[in-house]
Amino acid sequence: MKTDLGLTHFDEEGRVQMVDISSKQETLREAIATAVVRMAQTTKRHIQAGEMKKGDVLTVAEIAGVMAAKRTADLIPLCHPLPLASLRIRCEWVQDAANGDAQLQITATIGTTYRTGVEMEAMTACSVSALTVYDMCKAVDRGMSVEHIHLLHKSGGKSGVYDAPSTENGASTKHSPD
Amino acid sequence: MKTDLGLTHFDEEGRVQMVDISSKQETLREAIATAVVRMAQTTKRHIQAGEMKKGDVLTVAEIAGVMAAKRTADLIPLCHPLPLASLRIRCEWVQDAANGDAQLQITATIGTTYRTGVEMEAMTACSVSALTVYDMCKAVDRGMSVEHIHLLHKSGGKSGVYDAPSTENGASTKHSPD
Amino acid sequence: MKTDLGLTHFDEEGRVQMVDISSKQETLREAIATAVVRMAQTTKRHIQAGEMKKGDVLTVAEIAGVMAAKRTADLIPLCHPLPLASLRIRCEWVQDAANGDAQLQITATIGTTYRTGVEMEAMTACSVSALTVYDMCKAVDRGMSVEHIHLLHKSGGKSGVYDAPSTENGASTKHSPD
Amino acid sequence: MKTDLGLTHFDEEGRVQMVDISSKQETLREAIATAVVRMAQTTKRHIQAGEMKKGDVLTVAEIAGVMAAKRTADLIPLCHPLPLASLRIRCEWVQDAANGDAQLQITATIGTTYRTGVEMEAMTACSVSALTVYDMCKAVDRGMSVEHIHLLHKSGGKSGVYDAPSTENGASTKHSPD
Amino acid sequence: MKTDLGLTHFDEEGRVQMVDISSKQETLREAIATAVVRMAQTTKRHIQAGEMKKGDVLTVAEIAGVMAAKRTADLIPLCHPLPLASLRIRCEWVQDAANGDAQLQITATIGTTYRTGVEMEAMTACSVSALTVYDMCKAVDRGMSVEHIHLLHKSGGKSGVYDAPSTENGASTKHSPD
Amino acid sequence: MKTDLGLTHFDEEGRVQMVDISSKQETLREAIATAVVRMAQTTKRHIQAGEMKKGDVLTVAEIAGVMAAKRTADLIPLCHPLPLASLRIRCEWVQDAANGDAQLQITATIGTTYRTGVEMEAMTACSVSALTVYDMCKAVDRGMSVEHIHLLHKSGGKSGVYDAPSTENGASTKHSPD
Repeated sequence: MKTDLGLTHFDEEGRVQMVDISSKQETLREAIATAVVRMAQTTKRHIQAGEMKKGDVLTVAEIAGVMAAKRTADLIPLCHPLPLASLRIRCEWVQDAANGDAQLQITATIGTTYRTGVEMEAMTACSVSALTVYDMCKAVDRGMSVEHIHLLHKSGGKSGVYDAPSTENGASTKHSPD
Repeated sequence: MKTDLGLTHFDEEGRVQMVDISSKQETLREAIATAVVRMAQTTKRHIQAGEMKKGDVLTVAEIAGVMAAKRTADLIPLCHPLPLASLRIRCEWVQDAANGDAQLQITATIGTTYRTGVEMEAMTACSVSALTVYDMCKAVDRGMSVEHIHLLHKSGGKSGVYDAPSTENGASTKHSPD
Repeated sequence: MKTDLGLTHFDEEGRVQMVDISSKQETLREAIATAVVRMAQTTKRHIQAGEMKKGDVLTVAEIAGVMAAKRTADLIPLCHPLPLASLRIRCEWVQDAANGDAQLQITATIGTTYRTGVEMEAMTACSVSALTVYDMCKAVDRGMSVEHIHLLHKSGGKSGVYDAPSTENGASTKHSPD
Repeated sequence: MKTDLGLTHFDEEGRVQMVDISSKQETLREAIATAVVRMAQTTKRHIQAGEMKKGDVLTVAEIAGVMAAKRTADLIPLCHPLPLASLRIRCEWVQDAANGDAQLQITATIGTTYRTGVEMEAMTACSVSALTVYDMCKAVDRGMSVEHIHLLHKSGGKSGVYDAPSTENGASTKHSPD
Repeated sequence: MKTDLGLTHFDEEGRVQMVDISSKQETLREAIATAVVRMAQTTKRHIQAGEMKKGDVLTVAEIAGVMAAKRTADLIPLCHPLPLASLRIRCEWVQDAANGDAQLQITATIGTTYRTGVEMEAMTACSVSALTVYDMCKAVDRGMSVEHIHLLHKSGGKSGVYDAPSTENGASTKHSPD
Repeated sequence: MKTDLGLTHFDEEGRVQMVDISSKQETLREAIATAVVRMAQTTKRHIQAGEMKKGDVLTVAEIAGVMAAKRTADLIPLCHPLPLASLRIRCEWVQDAANGDAQLQITATIGTTYRTGVEMEAMTACSVSALTVYDMCKAVDRGMSVEHIHLLHKSGGKSGVYDAPSTENGASTKHSPD
């Protein structure tokens, strides 16, 4: 079946593709990603006191992250749809930023037994959890920001283990591509 | 209709709600949000040379952002579903980070004529565009990160205009809730 | 434009349609629906003690209900997509069933300012909240059931106010169509 | 990679998780769930006469159930996304309720070859089919209700076979958790 | 708020946008689109005899079209999400193709009261209905095709009425852009 | 568990089902589908000059096709949800139609390693890509049409290889079901 012969090829800009994973192994793969939500100290106190009128901020954020992880392939155009074997989101108050702002760290840990990794699922889960915190608190603190979404760890698959270089929170040292 | 009388009220933790906007005005509202993707200089060169094997990175990222904005209410649990009147995503290379990394700034500008604002739509669009850049380049640079997703500007509605305090890119000064 | 003339009409089974609401009024409309989850007393104790390993049952159920309400038109084929102005889900322990089982009542209250009512959104929210309770507890109690999903109240629009006839929980008296 | 050390742990409320199924077996699993829609006798006659103006009620309901089953993981927050191998929904008129109302029973039978069961998919399919019946008939009978959504049968997996205790339709005897 | 000053503008390829409709009128708009499914005569006989093992082909196709219309903005990247006021899909057997194949015409008629038209919704509804016919019959006829999806009619809005030039089915005369 | 005994069977119209694939082999399967978008020559020139105000037409169309392929089971009611291993969409200008119109051919090539084929995914990808071209150009050319969506090739699985009979573009010869 020659579908291209005699046709005027479009000029090679049509390169969009989901890369072929059919020959990759089904093996256990894990990814951990993290993000930090930076906010005013008073906002942290509101959250801890359960005073946000939309509901319990951290639980809602965690659930939003779980649900977003499952929809990653709907959001990221060239991501493969894949089954997830385990998924855990954790919100933790970490030390204040240099400027005195409060900081909430969100960590997503995801596992699969499929042919490709779950880095994007972990990154997406963190991001949507963090955005949900923003949504629930924006009425009192529009200046909140989401900082430093990155991959902490991955394992499994041909490319093996990756661990993010150790950093001070929010300040990455110059990195080289791996 | 007394649905509660004689019932054992659950203990007030069940506060989850989408706040009532039925008495708000239908008026023109706009929001602008931004994020920065930090990456190795070699990764920037790959993007600019169109060498990523999944396709043209910035166009794919912009489209992903547009589509994600339209699905914000599916992702952020207590966001209102709403119509969008206009939506534009722009990717720009900005000055390098202090550590020498390249930086791509993603800006989403969204308008609506509805009863509530589109801050979350703009934040979501930026985030998903940024994650898409990560996805398309992660094979060559797992150390990329998404930095400083925040609201630059909003206008319209009862709470009026908000402009983010002017900052050096990626380094926010201490803020107070508004 | 006569698109049908001279064509062999299919035999009138092709009646599927979303009914026309273009001449209806944009007005405030509200709907309240409810469902009951019936479970073993030990399951209730597990929920109250926060011992379910998937997380806090009632909060997750409420959020699931909110998110499902927003997707009603995706689920119910001939439902109109519409904006929601307010949405609240509440979980309450009510009196035990006649057979001694514990009962959790889930109530969804939804408002809109659109051209059609939100009964289906309220019914869907209750149902999905209830199913979420089932999901989170099924490892310890497969015999749980969801009982008596029905409309408690609606107001707004041409058909006016509807209130469900007062009933003993779970046992409806014979009703006549309205 | 120690991501937790030195951090202020959030107080253990952040327990939301999708449980790990990576070590479970890929094996044939089946689930059957059912629900009953209770309605006025005149509503039943309208359905049977094909007089509902939105279309053929039972076929639309069955399709809605099939499509909802495929979206279960989008609706139930902590459900695993999974492939479905077979899916059948059946609507049957069963004997009238004690109060003389007509009763339509909806049964969903679903199979998978994956690592976890499809109980939630079967429950969701029944529920959405039942809600679709409500939607298509609510113009003539707002007092309809969905009764007794429960799991009839499951097989496959480590927990083996489950069969619901035999009951009179709509009236469950006291059950103990399994 | 100058978000661009001092930045290296990306080279104008980043033009993706949802065009601004905020100043357009909310007015009644309608669109009618159509497609033809071409198939072997034996396939038509199977459909008419209700012998396809997946179910009643035309009803399933119509429902699929309705549901797809509601998700148009999820599928077509730069389409505005919008409410639909009415929606009807009709399947009709039309005269055989020149080569003797049977032809099923699918017509979608959609109305809205919003600020932009529903041409894409009508085109999408036809397409997905037609694809559903293909899916349900492909086991017996892989050579089926979907022909000539086009806009028959639109009305409402500033650009006014459009009617497709009258054509023999499947053979369009040369057209000029309007 | 006899769920049917003593029940009044609904009259066999309730035949909707997703066919059982649990005993099929997990094997490499591929499908290629294609569609043609027919348009005025001036519209082609606009696209090639990058003058469409919504953005770069062909890249947006390709991405839309990729994302739609991943959502096929959400759109086509009785399609199985399945993982995709590879996916490529290509847009090419082919020879003009007999009436002088320009023609853009869209080809989708999809692979999976699952138990059923990906014909519907390839057909859906082509269709949505083509509709996206329509959407981006409709402001200048409402008379565009999508022609001849069909399966070019499939391989893998029990039914083996299928190749569409060789045809002049847009004009199929009479076919017999396979």
